[in-house]
Amino acid sequence: MGNCCERLGPQKNTYMRVSLPAVCFVWQIAMIVLFGVFIRYDKESDAHWVEYKHKNNLTDLENDFYFRYPSFQDVHVMIFVGFGFLMTFLKRYSYGGVGFNFLIASFGLQWALLMQGWFHSLDLDTGKIYIGVENIINADFCCAGSLIAFGALLGKVSPVQLMVVTLFGVTLFAVEEYIILDLLHCRDAGGSMVIHCFGGYYGLAISWVLYRPNLHQSKHLHGSNYQSDLFAMIGTLFLWMFWPSFNGAISYHGDGQHRAFINTYIALASSVLTAVALSSMFHKRGKLDMVHIQNATLAGAVTMGTSAEFMITPYGSLIVGFCMGIISTFGYVFVTPFLEKTLKLQDTCGIHNLHAVPGMLGGFLGAIVAAAASEDVYSKEGLIIVFDKEGKYANRGMGTQGGYQAAGTCVSIAFGLVGGAIVGLILKIPIWGDAADDHCFDDEAYWEARSSFLPLDGALSL
Amino acid sequence: MGNCCERLGPQKNTYMRVSLPAVCFVWQIAMIVLFGVFIRYDKESDAHWVEYKHKNNLTDLENDFYFRYPSFQDVHVMIFVGFGFLMTFLKRYSYGGVGFNFLIASFGLQWALLMQGWFHSLDLDTGKIYIGVENIINADFCCAGSLIAFGALLGKVSPVQLMVVTLFGVTLFAVEEYIILDLLHCRDAGGSMVIHCFGGYYGLAISWVLYRPNLHQSKHLHGSNYQSDLFAMIGTLFLWMFWPSFNGAISYHGDGQHRAFINTYIALASSVLTAVALSSMFHKRGKLDMVHIQNATLAGAVTMGTSAEFMITPYGSLIVGFCMGIISTFGYVFVTPFLEKTLKLQDTCGIHNLHAVPGMLGGFLGAIVAAAASEDVYSKEGLIIVFDKEGKYANRGMGTQGGYQAAGTCVSIAFGLVGGAIVGLILKIPIWGDAADDHCFDDEAYWEARSSFLPLDGALSL
Amino acid sequence: MGNCCERLGPQKNTYMRVSLPAVCFVWQIAMIVLFGVFIRYDKESDAHWVEYKHKNNLTDLENDFYFRYPSFQDVHVMIFVGFGFLMTFLKRYSYGGVGFNFLIASFGLQWALLMQGWFHSLDLDTGKIYIGVENIINADFCCAGSLIAFGALLGKVSPVQLMVVTLFGVTLFAVEEYIILDLLHCRDAGGSMVIHCFGGYYGLAISWVLYRPNLHQSKHLHGSNYQSDLFAMIGTLFLWMFWPSFNGAISYHGDGQHRAFINTYIALASSVLTAVALSSMFHKRGKLDMVHIQNATLAGAVTMGTSAEFMITPYGSLIVGFCMGIISTFGYVFVTPFLEKTLKLQDTCGIHNLHAVPGMLGGFLGAIVAAAASEDVYSKEGLIIVFDKEGKYANRGMGTQGGYQAAGTCVSIAFGLVGGAIVGLILKIPIWGDAADDHCFDDEAYWEARSSFLPLDGALSL
Repeated sequence: MGNCCERLGPQKNTYMRVSLPAVCFVWQIAMIVLFGVFIRYDKESDAHWVEYKHKNNLTDLENDFYFRYPSFQDVHVMIFVGFGFLMTFLKRYSYGGVGFNFLIASFGLQWALLMQGWFHSLDLDTGKIYIGVENIINADFCCAGSLIAFGALLGKVSPVQLMVVTLFGVTLFAVEEYIILDLLHCRDAGGSMVIHCFGGYYGLAISWVLYRPNLHQSKHLHGSNYQSDLFAMIGTLFLWMFWPSFNGAISYHGDGQHRAFINTYIALASSVLTAVALSSMFHKRGKLDMVHIQNATLAGAVTMGTSAEFMITPYGSLIVGFCMGIISTFGYVFVTPFLEKTLKLQDTCGIHNLHAVPGMLGGFLGAIVAAAASEDVYSKEGLIIVFDKEGKYANRGMGTQGGYQAAGTCVSIAFGLVGGAIVGLILKIPIWGDAADDHCFDDEAYWEARSSFLPLDGALSL
Repeated sequence: MGNCCERLGPQKNTYMRVSLPAVCFVWQIAMIVLFGVFIRYDKESDAHWVEYKHKNNLTDLENDFYFRYPSFQDVHVMIFVGFGFLMTFLKRYSYGGVGFNFLIASFGLQWALLMQGWFHSLDLDTGKIYIGVENIINADFCCAGSLIAFGALLGKVSPVQLMVVTLFGVTLFAVEEYIILDLLHCRDAGGSMVIHCFGGYYGLAISWVLYRPNLHQSKHLHGSNYQSDLFAMIGTLFLWMFWPSFNGAISYHGDGQHRAFINTYIALASSVLTAVALSSMFHKRGKLDMVHIQNATLAGAVTMGTSAEFMITPYGSLIVGFCMGIISTFGYVFVTPFLEKTLKLQDTCGIHNLHAVPGMLGGFLGAIVAAAASEDVYSKEGLIIVFDKEGKYANRGMGTQGGYQAAGTCVSIAFGLVGGAIVGLILKIPIWGDAADDHCFDDEAYWEARSSFLPLDGALSL
Repeated sequence: MGNCCERLGPQKNTYMRVSLPAVCFVWQIAMIVLFGVFIRYDKESDAHWVEYKHKNNLTDLENDFYFRYPSFQDVHVMIFVGFGFLMTFLKRYSYGGVGFNFLIASFGLQWALLMQGWFHSLDLDTGKIYIGVENIINADFCCAGSLIAFGALLGKVSPVQLMVVTLFGVTLFAVEEYIILDLLHCRDAGGSMVIHCFGGYYGLAISWVLYRPNLHQSKHLHGSNYQSDLFAMIGTLFLWMFWPSFNGAISYHGDGQHRAFINTYIALASSVLTAVALSSMFHKRGKLDMVHIQNATLAGAVTMGTSAEFMITPYGSLIVGFCMGIISTFGYVFVTPFLEKTLKLQDTCGIHNLHAVPGMLGGFLGAIVAAAASEDVYSKEGLIIVFDKEGKYANRGMGTQGGYQAAGTCVSIAFGLVGGAIVGLILKIPIWGDAADDHCFDDEAYWEARSSFLPLDGALSL
């Protein structure tokens, strides 16, 4: 084993010793300085609020912290355990999957508190950002875009590159979210557009720029084994179970949030059945493939992101889940290999089929559902609340709203593709310590190789 | 490995390719149609409700969504991660354990929304079922019965057979639940009777009918290994931790739910100690057995199901946990092998000891505790609320209530045994693509066999 | 394998057969008796409360059960899954890690309900302890001290010894908590002092007394493998995600709890980056070490325990996390080996670096932050609420409060060291069935050895 580890540890790694700690330290210190300048507790966390409440006879129930906090924890589990363990499926890159996810999400949420704060909740009088529970839910959301991009790059980039992906990813996210939600005034409760569509195309564009023609040299490591597929199921199930909380976490309290929970719950149930059906159908002996069970079962919830709080009806949600289980599994079986062959697009986790396409379809579905909304179905006040038809948007017609929703989806695709291409070019600069082609998908490149690295099954059969 | 996979993949599997996708597709389409006809959002999810609330000056707190939703998520985790990972303990059927659990629970909850809706919440004026958070908690509960039955059948049936088990299981559940809770007016907060007792005997009856005399041909796969036992502990712990939420999820808000949480928490703690004690006592060298730690530690909560919201007192709960840890471990050591030998009952997970018997005892315990209830202990109003003594049940004496509780338990056993026997006969029809006796407990029968299937320890020692 | 198991199973184990069941049975029966004498439902769980509420027109919202219960479940997950799986990292002691954690936490929480009840919530009129959700959160907290101590002893003691460690650990905890919180009137929301500092030094002192000079005989088992490190990451992530709930679970509702959540969330994010940085910096080829990722990433939250509800500011929290990631990783790389060499201190999980030192620093940090508190920052009423300045403490100055906080930290260290030394001496009595030096870190000593114990990588290379 000692030998083996010598062989696998690329020379470049001595470089790692300089760059990763430097990036972590410098960026963390920058965060501290920026937090010092900009971030303050919001009123509910501020002790002065106690006095104010007391004088004005307000109860804690005036604030919505206690209703949002459990949803925050569900989202938090999705980001760290859900995404993290979903990416442990590679037989020898499980440390990297869960560990780098942990690293970049921890950095990303700090940067997201700042970026989203500047765009959405900067108090212009004081120049401060006041953070409460909604901000930390949104920070988790914001990281999700970069974690999705990580899925396409899994096993092919260094942790420093991932930090760069996250830095730009969170920045781009904050800008496109500002354009889509504030300027275009779209609704996107669960982030089909701003999170999944953007994150998916962002990752695909980076991966396309970073194309490795000789990746086949790591082919023996590019797959799962029995244990790694089970670890990945931990991720899948926590994502699957808590996705209703994800889609409803920042919805308007009351009926909008109720619908978001129920619609997502139903769409997810339906995705499982069609993902299983297609997985079996496409196998020459009718067997199931763990890749489809781990991923395509989630596609319904991605697509429900925008429409979750709309009156899409329970059977509408079932139909969405039904179609997305099919489309996503079809993507894993045919589209990903096709893209790799024709477009030179290496997409390790198949985010094209779980995030990019379902997110895009979710954006357009949201446009249609919004355009079809009427006072009959939503009630006068419901329409105002669900679509936030207030102020200068009070008179925007529903058809127009649908058009803006569609435009928002295009914005998110554009941001993903262009932003990803630029970030990809930055990552091509040969200073980031990425592994050689024959050391991809291998934890030994970045993790202390204990004698405990079990030989792979390939090695066993030798 | 290539060879090995040829040998193991049974010929029948080409059949799978037709039937599993067909069942999934057809049933999912049926669900969509039925949802379209019957299922609507409940008032709190309906946007018209916003207008109504606004006019009538109601706050969101009038509804109990926000108090139930965290409990719903706990129950959801138990169903998918708890049951799912608990069934990964077989060394080469872990995919099947967690994957088929995922499939049938996803189908089951859709069917449960319909079945329970027809029996409990059909609006006779409109012919619609209005679903909210209580319905989705109940749908999860309803699936649990079939997932328990899956435990007895684990590794011996095909996924199509499991879909059939779930279809009938959910149907029977809805009927027996209607009889027990509505007609007999029993109380069963955590479902000792309606979930565990029914589900346990349902699974045992099916397994008894499907007896495989030559199952010993798969004996080398009928066991755990180091990793699979650890994966199973994930399931055990999530079940153990969230069981208080399970037993209290649909209790009356306030004191009934408080008691349900506290009683279950205490009973579970006590079960762990006696399960450990007996496990060590029955081993010839005093060692512990993972099977007992994974299962018998949960028995106290199963038995507390009916009585959780009653005034059983904290030490009463401890005593229940104490006894059930003993009874359940005893069952694993002596009763399961005895049943297999004498009754030809093959019970893979030992649901006899974790669900059937503890559930039955829980039903009878509930009868005794109910019969012993008095105004002194519960207060006049407490008695009315806990036992729902309203309308035509206002004058039912507590002794009578106890009698009905006992009768309810018998109903659930009868439904389980008779229903299971009939479903077992249906499953004996040789069209379901189940594995041959020598391919039981083997994921290679139904799952894409990657080169990554690690050789078993048996193979290694060759 | 049969042979192997004969060789590994120490003779002492026949003794286990007597002692472990005996301890479990006798102690559980004692719990039942003591619960019978002392423990009652609190008013909110009591059915008489219904009548009272009804008469007095109180709503459920008067009680805080529904706000605390989700936090309770988060803490519960940390205790059983978090601590349990964190301790599965040893390649052949994973059963022991998660299983014994399960056993002693289940016993510990029962004993904690009694001990904490006697000290904090005994009703002197009735001689009863009335338990509600705050009590069960506190019981979980109380166990945490003993589970931390378990970390130092992992793999070197028998389950009976662990029961003894827990019995005394919970007892000492209740006493030192009474001294620190009630007599010294310190604030310690997340338990830096009472939980981590005490638990850490308690475990270290026991381990020091139980020094095994020939532990190198088990050296081949004293390490992780690929799978066990992944299982440990489950523990790490659940601890990391839910630590905000831990630090805020019993805080004053409203702003204090908000701050506890936000401060801890931020400190944790910052710890991850510096832990990664140092892990890479200290490796000769710049690689990361799983041990640091699993542990040092959590250090920020331990240190934030006392100060979490104070106005430490968001960037203050970032700085705390920044420093603790460095200090903790430094400890794993240099201090633990140094302590083992010079002080003969064998600390399996490195609790010195994750609990003892961060807890102590958290205590002193809390003293400084408390001493610096002023009416300007907290508002008059905020200061009263956060520091509970009521009754005879109304006039205690903030400098004095800081002094008391520092004194409290010293009390917790003293209790840990002295209590641990005494308990260590008790455990040296040769009646507890601990494994021989060459059977440490080996599950086969206490767990049924299935043929399924996979050969270790060492064995494979033979």
